[in-house]
Amino acid sequence: MSRTMKAAVVRALGQPLSIEEVPVPTPGPGEVLVKIVASGVCHTDVHAADGDWPVKPTPPFIPGHEGAGIVAGLGPGVTGLKEGDPVGIAWLHDACGGCESCITGWETLCPSQHNSGYGVNGTFAEYAIGNAAYLARLPARPDFAALAPILCAGVTTYKGIKETEAKPGEWLAISGIGGLGHVAVQYAKAMGLHVVAIDVADDKLALARTLGADVTVNAMSPDAAEIVTKYTDGGAHGVLVTAVSVPAFSQALQMVRRKGTVSLVGLPPGDFPTPIFDVVLKRITVRGSIVGTRKDLAEAVAFASEGKVHAHIHTAPLESINDIFAALKSGTVDGRMVLDLALPAGSMREQAATRINALA
Amino acid sequence: MSRTMKAAVVRALGQPLSIEEVPVPTPGPGEVLVKIVASGVCHTDVHAADGDWPVKPTPPFIPGHEGAGIVAGLGPGVTGLKEGDPVGIAWLHDACGGCESCITGWETLCPSQHNSGYGVNGTFAEYAIGNAAYLARLPARPDFAALAPILCAGVTTYKGIKETEAKPGEWLAISGIGGLGHVAVQYAKAMGLHVVAIDVADDKLALARTLGADVTVNAMSPDAAEIVTKYTDGGAHGVLVTAVSVPAFSQALQMVRRKGTVSLVGLPPGDFPTPIFDVVLKRITVRGSIVGTRKDLAEAVAFASEGKVHAHIHTAPLESINDIFAALKSGTVDGRMVLDLALPAGSMREQAATRINALA
Amino acid sequence: MSRTMKAAVVRALGQPLSIEEVPVPTPGPGEVLVKIVASGVCHTDVHAADGDWPVKPTPPFIPGHEGAGIVAGLGPGVTGLKEGDPVGIAWLHDACGGCESCITGWETLCPSQHNSGYGVNGTFAEYAIGNAAYLARLPARPDFAALAPILCAGVTTYKGIKETEAKPGEWLAISGIGGLGHVAVQYAKAMGLHVVAIDVADDKLALARTLGADVTVNAMSPDAAEIVTKYTDGGAHGVLVTAVSVPAFSQALQMVRRKGTVSLVGLPPGDFPTPIFDVVLKRITVRGSIVGTRKDLAEAVAFASEGKVHAHIHTAPLESINDIFAALKSGTVDGRMVLDLALPAGSMREQAATRINALA
Amino acid sequence: MSRTMKAAVVRALGQPLSIEEVPVPTPGPGEVLVKIVASGVCHTDVHAADGDWPVKPTPPFIPGHEGAGIVAGLGPGVTGLKEGDPVGIAWLHDACGGCESCITGWETLCPSQHNSGYGVNGTFAEYAIGNAAYLARLPARPDFAALAPILCAGVTTYKGIKETEAKPGEWLAISGIGGLGHVAVQYAKAMGLHVVAIDVADDKLALARTLGADVTVNAMSPDAAEIVTKYTDGGAHGVLVTAVSVPAFSQALQMVRRKGTVSLVGLPPGDFPTPIFDVVLKRITVRGSIVGTRKDLAEAVAFASEGKVHAHIHTAPLESINDIFAALKSGTVDGRMVLDLALPAGSMREQAATRINALA
Repeated sequence: MSRTMKAAVVRALGQPLSIEEVPVPTPGPGEVLVKIVASGVCHTDVHAADGDWPVKPTPPFIPGHEGAGIVAGLGPGVTGLKEGDPVGIAWLHDACGGCESCITGWETLCPSQHNSGYGVNGTFAEYAIGNAAYLARLPARPDFAALAPILCAGVTTYKGIKETEAKPGEWLAISGIGGLGHVAVQYAKAMGLHVVAIDVADDKLALARTLGADVTVNAMSPDAAEIVTKYTDGGAHGVLVTAVSVPAFSQALQMVRRKGTVSLVGLPPGDFPTPIFDVVLKRITVRGSIVGTRKDLAEAVAFASEGKVHAHIHTAPLESINDIFAALKSGTVDGRMVLDLALPAGSMREQAATRINALA
Repeated sequence: MSRTMKAAVVRALGQPLSIEEVPVPTPGPGEVLVKIVASGVCHTDVHAADGDWPVKPTPPFIPGHEGAGIVAGLGPGVTGLKEGDPVGIAWLHDACGGCESCITGWETLCPSQHNSGYGVNGTFAEYAIGNAAYLARLPARPDFAALAPILCAGVTTYKGIKETEAKPGEWLAISGIGGLGHVAVQYAKAMGLHVVAIDVADDKLALARTLGADVTVNAMSPDAAEIVTKYTDGGAHGVLVTAVSVPAFSQALQMVRRKGTVSLVGLPPGDFPTPIFDVVLKRITVRGSIVGTRKDLAEAVAFASEGKVHAHIHTAPLESINDIFAALKSGTVDGRMVLDLALPAGSMREQAATRINALA
Repeated sequence: MSRTMKAAVVRALGQPLSIEEVPVPTPGPGEVLVKIVASGVCHTDVHAADGDWPVKPTPPFIPGHEGAGIVAGLGPGVTGLKEGDPVGIAWLHDACGGCESCITGWETLCPSQHNSGYGVNGTFAEYAIGNAAYLARLPARPDFAALAPILCAGVTTYKGIKETEAKPGEWLAISGIGGLGHVAVQYAKAMGLHVVAIDVADDKLALARTLGADVTVNAMSPDAAEIVTKYTDGGAHGVLVTAVSVPAFSQALQMVRRKGTVSLVGLPPGDFPTPIFDVVLKRITVRGSIVGTRKDLAEAVAFASEGKVHAHIHTAPLESINDIFAALKSGTVDGRMVLDLALPAGSMREQAATRINALA
Repeated sequence: MSRTMKAAVVRALGQPLSIEEVPVPTPGPGEVLVKIVASGVCHTDVHAADGDWPVKPTPPFIPGHEGAGIVAGLGPGVTGLKEGDPVGIAWLHDACGGCESCITGWETLCPSQHNSGYGVNGTFAEYAIGNAAYLARLPARPDFAALAPILCAGVTTYKGIKETEAKPGEWLAISGIGGLGHVAVQYAKAMGLHVVAIDVADDKLALARTLGADVTVNAMSPDAAEIVTKYTDGGAHGVLVTAVSVPAFSQALQMVRRKGTVSLVGLPPGDFPTPIFDVVLKRITVRGSIVGTRKDLAEAVAFASEGKVHAHIHTAPLESINDIFAALKSGTVDGRMVLDLALPAGSMREQAATRINALA
């Protein structure tokens, strides 16, 4: 095995990533070296590289937390995994294992957690380190590129839907049909829910329909909330807000049924105005949701492995990362961009650029 | 029985109530005539009389929805009640009985509900009409004045605590130790919870301690949230916000534990800013709660009947209602004002005024 | 409208039903006269006619509690329904509306309930009385014969599945693929569950596969439990026992996952041996479930109305009722027998006999 | 530190334990050496020594799984603990940490778990090995002998009560007021429940009353179930069966309210007859419960540390273990026997015998 690898490195916050040859890391106790086959690119990676969240990562570091690949080496004490096993590196690199959150199956809330591509190096590289206890187990002979986005976009929306507590046969409204929302529509249908898809873009609503949405509503329509209320005979039992903007949040509160739940999975900065009168009189629940636990992740992967959920992806070589970030910032990516680590750099750069431009 | 009765009537929104002699109402099918012994006075009654909520009541009407009394007459078809039975008239006068909310034990969310002292005449009178199916059943030989506030203040806080989903042995923070909060402290202790009481007034915090609060924190302290977090070893599992003000709500979100719930029971106008980053990363739940169902009401009455919860009350004759409203608006009432319908008017006016002044 | 109607009447417990011309009943306050279009035949009807349950019905009476039809008359005080509306009469004719069970959305547990075709006359007749507050609302222009079995077999299995608390993506084992089980398979799939179907008859297992079962296992296989455990990777999260026999119950406890739930919906006489060691060490839950509430019924009807659940039915005229009972007792009916009240008696008798014989 | 220690060793199943001098064990990675101060004696220890459960332990081994003591040595890699810390060794010595049960906060169901005093050496010794991740954390300066029984009897009943899902203000019936039941009464009261205590012995019922039981009923009374039903106005919401005998289980099913839960925490061999008719028509839940998770254990210890739960204990030196086993088998122990490892052997033997005899 080579001693060096190609990686996309943040040298300074807010600056373009540099494609570099860096040492292949060595797995410590309980850790696993993963040869990355494909890595999805998430908005969070952009926030990491820009350092615009309250707690900032420390350069230099490698972003990326949707890494699908195969076990290439085991650190001391690792059991239950062997070289060649297909695995995934997700946002939760590891957690303390002993706090109240960890021992109750809520390790995603562990205050001592480390996050891939943020607090520890991530998956925008040919190799990355995962923690054996937190790696996602993938099915045999997986479609790595297709599964990569499930590791964050998939599990995040799947968990967010669970957190609405909407039951089979009930209505889920999904606000925002982008990288998260188009996956959410599929999870919701596989979970037996009726789906209203809401977006400002008609082509995304068309996509939602092909993915199974029962009703689509353009969020710009002045009577969008009334339409949802009418179709759902009183409002959606759950609303998943993936496009967390002030108007989307306000609209969600108008679309939710009495006793329903609005689940938030995005992380925009700032506050959202909550209308107390409605929340109290209708007994509305507003709940935040952050990625998913290992159990949620296993479930989310299972749905995808059974073919019930397909992320809509575009692949590109590692060298395209800065172009992809630019496309994400401009909001022009439909579905999910995935880095294919197997692609040789040169020849693919052009193709990647074309794809990204095509999205604009 | 007399054909007329004394009542406090709203003749015009925003004007003082007039004490009048009006006809005793006749109970219709399924209804019950209740001789009111005592009626608590709630902030909602002030809102009703002032007409400052989005949906306004239509004068003339009689406010009041914490009416404890005895059955004085039965309308056609009423079974299971007889003259002399002690009963309570609460906010939920009746509901449709057939909608999704009603058939699932959430009649408080029925869109067709009528509310005592708002949509139908209430309990600031010697007699009032209740719906047999929705009347609270009181224990034999009750202390009517003591139980009256349980019919709204009691059940509202009790339900609000339940909605936090805090379990025995966990921590509940109660923000605001007024008419609602001082009752909430007692319910929480009877439910096996640890209690942090929070208020801006030290005398109310002292009251909370006598009622069983384990810890008290002055909300004006710059490090109030830190203190709560320290004493509760990570934040309160539930926070009940009775004093719903923008600062109280913001503070509640800082005091709540990861995966905890903030429950809102007040009805101030306007929006509250919700910090999305914290809500998502800590998986916080924000939930509105409105009064309580018939089952909640029966439970709330049971706790009080067993002597586990005592509302701190001041009694006054019906004629003092305008003075009481003034005191409520000025925020000077500690505990709950209760109209004692048995008191003769003239001689008591002075005493009542003294009591109300003493509160100021 | 005619003053008399054709009905199948139990004149004496344990005797054949007699087809008689009896007066059309008059709906009382809150009641509705329903012209029955189709009525499913349930094992409970056989128990009613035979009087072999602890609490016996009192002859003469008309059995039947899966009656789909249209409103033909309204008693005093009925609102929200009009002549011509499609409705269903189910097992729960009415309940008291005021007890702890009723006010918490569990009217199926009301100790004062009346049951159609047992305590009050049922639906084996051209007309029957329903209580407006408890009638199922059917969709416009329904397939009455197809929906009739949903009113009991459908809602019973649907509720039984909910009571296992199995979540979308998890495994449900359904023991017994008869009149209840073949409907249960479809509900389970519509609810996003993975299904293992278990029966002693291979043709019923074949039917289960066509209805969407992921795995089928013959209950007579000596390693049936091991097979289920293997396919479900540790046991089914929920087990619905529709064929409640001692061996089926014992097997269910071997097939259920740690922390899983076995839900029972049948009503055989006698006791079942419960192995305490397994139940404790695996934290198994065993739970009874009886029909479903009005909310459950509305949900069960909605799934069927959307075409996600089709009861496998055979229609016959009212005059065939004794032959149908015989077939039910012999266990030879696949799917559900439904009386079609529109069929003229004479010509159909032969056809019905043929159908029933064909099932044997 | 001495290299040898005194221990009670099972040399052969079914034979008396021998008090021996054996080597002090050395903690491996993640393990902790605990100097035992006090160790409760549980019926499970008798089963271990007798080898009368389906899966038998392998002699020689040291029983005991209610061991309270202080950290005396740390194995490699242990963090968060230091010498002198007060800790407890409970039934769950360790679990795999990675299975479905472990990652969802149900490590008590881990199929790969090891159990103290059964699969690994236990606490009937001056020193024992605990796993750092699974040790109970005790409060500073604990009463070791008083807390020892909380580590199994306490947490088992506390968890069993939680599993009934009875809520504050509701009724819990506790069947069997022995070593488990007398602790259960106290937990139930601290959790805000109303308690009916049931036993065949009037002195145990008297004890229950002093511990806060609201009602006591002698199980031998022919109308015991009717009495419970009357006092609880319809049956207990939850029934905790600690004395799992066939009659106790049958009685529990007669005492439980509609929609209530019977929780089983004992481990007798054999089957219990379950009356299906009642279970179905009343929607009764029967649920097994086994010890408690680390979170449950922390909560159970907290209740005891706050003085809300006191196990009724008798202390004796290690040398009395065979006498104690005999007393346990004869059912004459009231409360819990606790080995005090600090007591010198010789002089105490007599005293211990006296105490044990006094119990008979």
